[in-house]
Amino acid sequence: RGSTMKNIRIGSVGLGRLGLRHAENVASKIPGASLHALCDLDETLLAQTADRLGVPYRYTDFDQMVQNAEIDAVVIVSPSGLHTGQIEAALKAGKHVFTEKPLGVTVEECKTAERAVEAHPDRVFMIGFMRRFDESYMYAHEKVMRGDIGKPVLFRSYSQDPESSIEGAIKYAGHSGGQFLDMAVHDIDLARWFVGSEPQNVYAIGGCYAHPEFGQYNDGDNVSCLMKFQNDAMVFLFAGRTAPHGYNVETEIIGTTGILRIASVPQKNMVEVLDSHGVRRECSDNFLDRFESSYVREIQEFVDCIREDRKPSVSVYDGTKCTEIAYRCKEAFETGQLLEF
Amino acid sequence: RGSTMKNIRIGSVGLGRLGLRHAENVASKIPGASLHALCDLDETLLAQTADRLGVPYRYTDFDQMVQNAEIDAVVIVSPSGLHTGQIEAALKAGKHVFTEKPLGVTVEECKTAERAVEAHPDRVFMIGFMRRFDESYMYAHEKVMRGDIGKPVLFRSYSQDPESSIEGAIKYAGHSGGQFLDMAVHDIDLARWFVGSEPQNVYAIGGCYAHPEFGQYNDGDNVSCLMKFQNDAMVFLFAGRTAPHGYNVETEIIGTTGILRIASVPQKNMVEVLDSHGVRRECSDNFLDRFESSYVREIQEFVDCIREDRKPSVSVYDGTKCTEIAYRCKEAFETGQLLEF
Amino acid sequence: RGSTMKNIRIGSVGLGRLGLRHAENVASKIPGASLHALCDLDETLLAQTADRLGVPYRYTDFDQMVQNAEIDAVVIVSPSGLHTGQIEAALKAGKHVFTEKPLGVTVEECKTAERAVEAHPDRVFMIGFMRRFDESYMYAHEKVMRGDIGKPVLFRSYSQDPESSIEGAIKYAGHSGGQFLDMAVHDIDLARWFVGSEPQNVYAIGGCYAHPEFGQYNDGDNVSCLMKFQNDAMVFLFAGRTAPHGYNVETEIIGTTGILRIASVPQKNMVEVLDSHGVRRECSDNFLDRFESSYVREIQEFVDCIREDRKPSVSVYDGTKCTEIAYRCKEAFETGQLLEF
Amino acid sequence: RGSTMKNIRIGSVGLGRLGLRHAENVASKIPGASLHALCDLDETLLAQTADRLGVPYRYTDFDQMVQNAEIDAVVIVSPSGLHTGQIEAALKAGKHVFTEKPLGVTVEECKTAERAVEAHPDRVFMIGFMRRFDESYMYAHEKVMRGDIGKPVLFRSYSQDPESSIEGAIKYAGHSGGQFLDMAVHDIDLARWFVGSEPQNVYAIGGCYAHPEFGQYNDGDNVSCLMKFQNDAMVFLFAGRTAPHGYNVETEIIGTTGILRIASVPQKNMVEVLDSHGVRRECSDNFLDRFESSYVREIQEFVDCIREDRKPSVSVYDGTKCTEIAYRCKEAFETGQLLEF
Ligand SMILES: NC(=O)c1ccc[n+]([C@@H]2O[C@H](COP(=O)([O-])OP(=O)(O)OC[C@H]3O[C@@H](n4cnc5c(N)ncnc54)[C@H](O)[C@@H]3O)[C@@H](O)[C@H]2O)c1
Ligand SMILES: NC(=O)c1ccc[n+]([C@@H]2O[C@H](COP(=O)([O-])OP(=O)(O)OC[C@H]3O[C@@H](n4cnc5c(N)ncnc54)[C@H](O)[C@@H]3O)[C@@H](O)[C@H]2O)c1
Ligand SMILES: NC(=O)c1ccc[n+]([C@@H]2O[C@H](COP(=O)([O-])OP(=O)(O)OC[C@H]3O[C@@H](n4cnc5c(N)ncnc54)[C@H](O)[C@@H]3O)[C@@H](O)[C@H]2O)c1
Ligand SMILES: NC(=O)c1ccc[n+]([C@@H]2O[C@H](COP(=O)([O-])OP(=O)(O)OC[C@H]3O[C@@H](n4cnc5c(N)ncnc54)[C@H](O)[C@@H]3O)[C@@H](O)[C@H]2O)c1
Repeated sequence: RGSTMKNIRIGSVGLGRLGLRHAENVASKIPGASLHALCDLDETLLAQTADRLGVPYRYTDFDQMVQNAEIDAVVIVSPSGLHTGQIEAALKAGKHVFTEKPLGVTVEECKTAERAVEAHPDRVFMIGFMRRFDESYMYAHEKVMRGDIGKPVLFRSYSQDPESSIEGAIKYAGHSGGQFLDMAVHDIDLARWFVGSEPQNVYAIGGCYAHPEFGQYNDGDNVSCLMKFQNDAMVFLFAGRTAPHGYNVETEIIGTTGILRIASVPQKNMVEVLDSHGVRRECSDNFLDRFESSYVREIQEFVDCIREDRKPSVSVYDGTKCTEIAYRCKEAFETGQLLEF
Repeated sequence: RGSTMKNIRIGSVGLGRLGLRHAENVASKIPGASLHALCDLDETLLAQTADRLGVPYRYTDFDQMVQNAEIDAVVIVSPSGLHTGQIEAALKAGKHVFTEKPLGVTVEECKTAERAVEAHPDRVFMIGFMRRFDESYMYAHEKVMRGDIGKPVLFRSYSQDPESSIEGAIKYAGHSGGQFLDMAVHDIDLARWFVGSEPQNVYAIGGCYAHPEFGQYNDGDNVSCLMKFQNDAMVFLFAGRTAPHGYNVETEIIGTTGILRIASVPQKNMVEVLDSHGVRRECSDNFLDRFESSYVREIQEFVDCIREDRKPSVSVYDGTKCTEIAYRCKEAFETGQLLEF
Repeated sequence: RGSTMKNIRIGSVGLGRLGLRHAENVASKIPGASLHALCDLDETLLAQTADRLGVPYRYTDFDQMVQNAEIDAVVIVSPSGLHTGQIEAALKAGKHVFTEKPLGVTVEECKTAERAVEAHPDRVFMIGFMRRFDESYMYAHEKVMRGDIGKPVLFRSYSQDPESSIEGAIKYAGHSGGQFLDMAVHDIDLARWFVGSEPQNVYAIGGCYAHPEFGQYNDGDNVSCLMKFQNDAMVFLFAGRTAPHGYNVETEIIGTTGILRIASVPQKNMVEVLDSHGVRRECSDNFLDRFESSYVREIQEFVDCIREDRKPSVSVYDGTKCTEIAYRCKEAFETGQLLEF
Repeated sequence: RGSTMKNIRIGSVGLGRLGLRHAENVASKIPGASLHALCDLDETLLAQTADRLGVPYRYTDFDQMVQNAEIDAVVIVSPSGLHTGQIEAALKAGKHVFTEKPLGVTVEECKTAERAVEAHPDRVFMIGFMRRFDESYMYAHEKVMRGDIGKPVLFRSYSQDPESSIEGAIKYAGHSGGQFLDMAVHDIDLARWFVGSEPQNVYAIGGCYAHPEFGQYNDGDNVSCLMKFQNDAMVFLFAGRTAPHGYNVETEIIGTTGILRIASVPQKNMVEVLDSHGVRRECSDNFLDRFESSYVREIQEFVDCIREDRKPSVSVYDGTKCTEIAYRCKEAFETGQLLEF
């Protein structure tokens, strides 16, 4: 990261729960990059954030932002339904693009994004599957690639949001695409990454165990699915909104000669408390807490790819695949049938 | 357990891996009972064991043993295919009966056993689902019954035998009834016990990941299934023969307001080793190691039921249900279809 | 444990917190032994317990009990100050003797006990250092003896009673002999057993951090000491009465090539609870809970020694040594000086 | 951290094990700062590092570096014996100073540093007790300050270097100041920070359990001490060079109403491995691995203090105190006596 390399000026769109964090990271934690523009519909939030982070340009219209010639790259953290449109516009304007997951909320949208990316082969395009940038997941993945656990037998992954954030989840439910697309899409990405194969069929169940509100979107507050992959690996995914203990993302990969578990206890840090409740670990509060450094690392990788003229290991096709699979899981859940891919 | 109560004289059949342990337990760890007779086809083993444990009567024919008027009760630890025949014979001869799981290897056999039990309502009949007598499972069950975790959302249970015992497993594979009947039957029992409901449908997958030998019995070395129960609870079971770390029986019950995990690390004892492999827990070697005190406790309960003229909480119908469900899982696995109950 | 061996008839004295448990164990959990007599000053408790456990003989006078010719052995669980007198009387009457720790509350008393034991070389004499019979401590000890951790560097051991039982501890404080004799005596025994050497000097500190009541006996509610042993091993002991989380007995042995930790988390069982307090293990409530099976195992060993005409590995001299060391620690604590042995 | 604030240009001295890391961090992980000069005796290393990190100025003479008017601040990571001289020179030249621990290797040196700091009250001076910037230690400290664990009873802290790095430790032994000054100084700092009091007396022991080489410096490969603090808290410290499992820094604070443990298992990350060694956590390799983000956070704090015209919470007097205490521990160890402060 020599200082002679070009500094990458970034414009970021969406200043919500995650967008604010991405903006702060770009502003101060990414050597080689600077936050040059911000975009959000909410003008107060926009002004306040741009002032606080010392950002020169502010926009309420994304299309205008991408016309700013001083900007090299965009980071898209807007609502999922806007992703592909913004991807297209940004690439067309010659910008490198980092977009949050999911790539798109329909497979058609994803295909549009694919075409846009294909049309700009010299631009860096990256999708925010941040778990791939978590040091524990990275460490485990290396072991698996090295053959330490043999052939994959069972891949199990949980994404649980804390009950304490249920209100927001309910409000957001109509636009999230459902548990499989909104939450399990990360586990789907991990499954493909660790197992190195694609799903063959899926059975999905679940329900509204505590919050009937999800029912109106044909969704559940807790859902799961069992998939057989083409290489015979079994994949079991669980996504829930009612975790009593905090934000719990955990994964287990059972191989023929070894087993790995990542974050089986979602401990917030290395402190153990011994008190009247026993011996306990306090848990991560939410994705910002748990994946704090992954969000930095993924943007760093995006910036480094631009500066070093490389391509990230996650492609737009991975984004499409994950959306496709998530949709099929959703369909299996809604119909109660065993579906093929 | 006053000393004025009658001492229960027990005859035990089968001196294999588990039978020997049951015999030893009855001989010296069960107040109120004594080991009065042994039965096995293997005469050397029979003589040796009877001598060592000071057992007066020895038989190679079970039917002769049950004619011994001095015997009050039998403990059946013979191969699974012999269970129901021996249950019938023993009850007919007026003995109380404890039988190892599974009740029978076909549903028809189980129904025969049900009729035999119904014909002798004054006899104690018990089936060896020893996990219900493990102190951790008992402790967790109490919490669930008390409502500590709310409504059950996901029940997940693993039964993993160590790779180190694979040779025996392969030899035994033809008579075991397959992974679902031989191993997962315990998890099925637990699922019903914890969730308090019955399965509605099942999807099952798996394969021979390391040991093709299981293929000739239409079985896998690792299998799993996802079931929806009538009360909407999701149930995910996994049974494997290739655990690299030891004997791993673990269960998780996710409820709407709390989660319990039993034996998520199958630690042998409370010793932690810090050496060049890191910080580690050595694991249980096998079922005898892990469930040592459960095997004692279940026989104690059997004897106490006889002495106190009570009925055990597990009934013959539980045995039939578990066999039925295990068979349906096996069928789902073999056909690759989603099956209803 | 052949059935042809003589049954050992036991008389037990003291029906307090631990005495009751020993009585129940002898009555129903020790093959080869039966509870034949009970002794306590409290007549109601005596009658009630004897009735419940079906014990033929009852005494309020220990000297009378040991005259009962039907009794083979006694188990002493009376207040610590009575131990050596009862040991002498029992041995003189020809009984085998198991006594609770500490051997005696002064070194002189211990010497008297030594002489009594020496005068009856054909009698089994055993002292209740039950931790030596805990499966985790046994497992760790074997490793250490096998050389798995090399040369001992640091031995650290904690004995913590829960704050919830502080009332009893305060009441009992005047007769307990102080934290070092009452609690740390077990850790002293373990240190000698694991390190295989004797202390050379000791520095001890502590105080009344929460309960000034202990001050009137020149004692603290939490105390610790650092000792250098003759083989250079460092030994750090901590004994406390105010543990917020439960009964915590833990030990660490740091060797030159490996480290062992026993019960670093004093978990009650294998259940993990995930709730609003995080991910937690509930803890052992008290010594009866934590060492349940050790109390059985030590009495079994006592009975087996009698039946097989063997001597236990813990001798009366171990009892004296531990009392001597505990006293020296107490003296170091009281004077604030560095003391030699 | 608005972009309008002045950028702090840093000159760093010492490019050894830790110095290299500090240089890399300043070069690319500290918003608001840039690495402007490097100094080391080793010219090859100097040139190589400066090239790689794009650093304009290079020096082999520290005194020359501090004359560079473009430099605002220095980071001192040279051998411990050089610290105070370089502190003086840098402050005199008007630079802000961050120095690695220990402040100095004698108390006199520390006093000199104190005077230099006092003579430049407008300069930021900070000492590198990085554990105070570890997120787990910070989290625990907040709890203690909030009163969550009541009054401190026992503070226990370990610093263990892995046996795998013993060669370097032996080579370095003559200049390190000994285990208490080189390693335990961090635990001494933590003890004062958590307990909020100063030591009253100390007893220290230890020896050369595996490596006699330390003996020639009157040092041990493993040492420990027990201190009574003025507020009665007990403090037990252990420092070792032969940890079989990795780099182990752990701390326990037992209070009257709660207990905290920091890093009781020195796990490298959140991955659990289940294989033939059991269930295990791989451990941190060394201080760079364990305290990776603390080293960043402390320099960030140093830079922020300069930019925001604040003073760090750790003062030069803390540095002196820690050196004083470490020396007294060393003296106690060497003389075998109980010493007062
Ligand atoms: N990788 C992860 O772990 C993770 C976590 C959370 C969210 N996400 C993804 O990030 C995206 C944002 O999620 P969030 O939770 O931050 O959302 P949010 O609803 O909290 O915030 C969205 C923001 O976008 C702004 N916005 C809406 N329409 C806009 C428009 N047309 N132009 C400009 N700004 C507009 C809103 O004003 C709001 O500030 C989603 O796609 C989500 O799937 C990913
Ligand atoms: N609950 C559990 O955890 C558990 C564990 C293991 C086995 N089991 C069950 O226990 C039973 C025995 O299993 P095992 O592993 O001990 O079997 P095994 O094959 O090791 O031993 C079976 C024994 O029965 C004897 N035997 C066979 N036919 C006989 C006959 N006609 N009459 C008398 N003896 C006969 C054999 O000689 C052998 O000694 C099975 O039903 C199995 O499902 C339960
Ligand atoms: N090994 C361990 O873990 C452990 C644990 C607790 C107690 N102990 C030891 O066990 C002994 C008893 O402790 P406890 O806590 O059960 O005591 P306790 O005070 O609860 O009970 C003592 C009993 O002895 C009876 N008693 C008193 N004087 C008597 C006499 N002269 N004759 C007959 N009975 C008499 C009392 O009535 C009472 O029932 C003590 O020596 C203690 O050190 C050991
Ligand atoms: N906070 C911590 O965790 C921690 C960890 C390790 C070291 N340290 C401290 O950091 C300091 C350095 O330790 P290290 O292990 O990196 O040492 P090191 O021996 O690995 O490196 C020292 C470097 O200083 C250079 N040097 C020596 N004399 C010099 C001089 N006169 N001018 C310029 N450069 C000179 C050497 O060439 C070498 O590159 C020590 O004070 C040590 O106590 C702190």
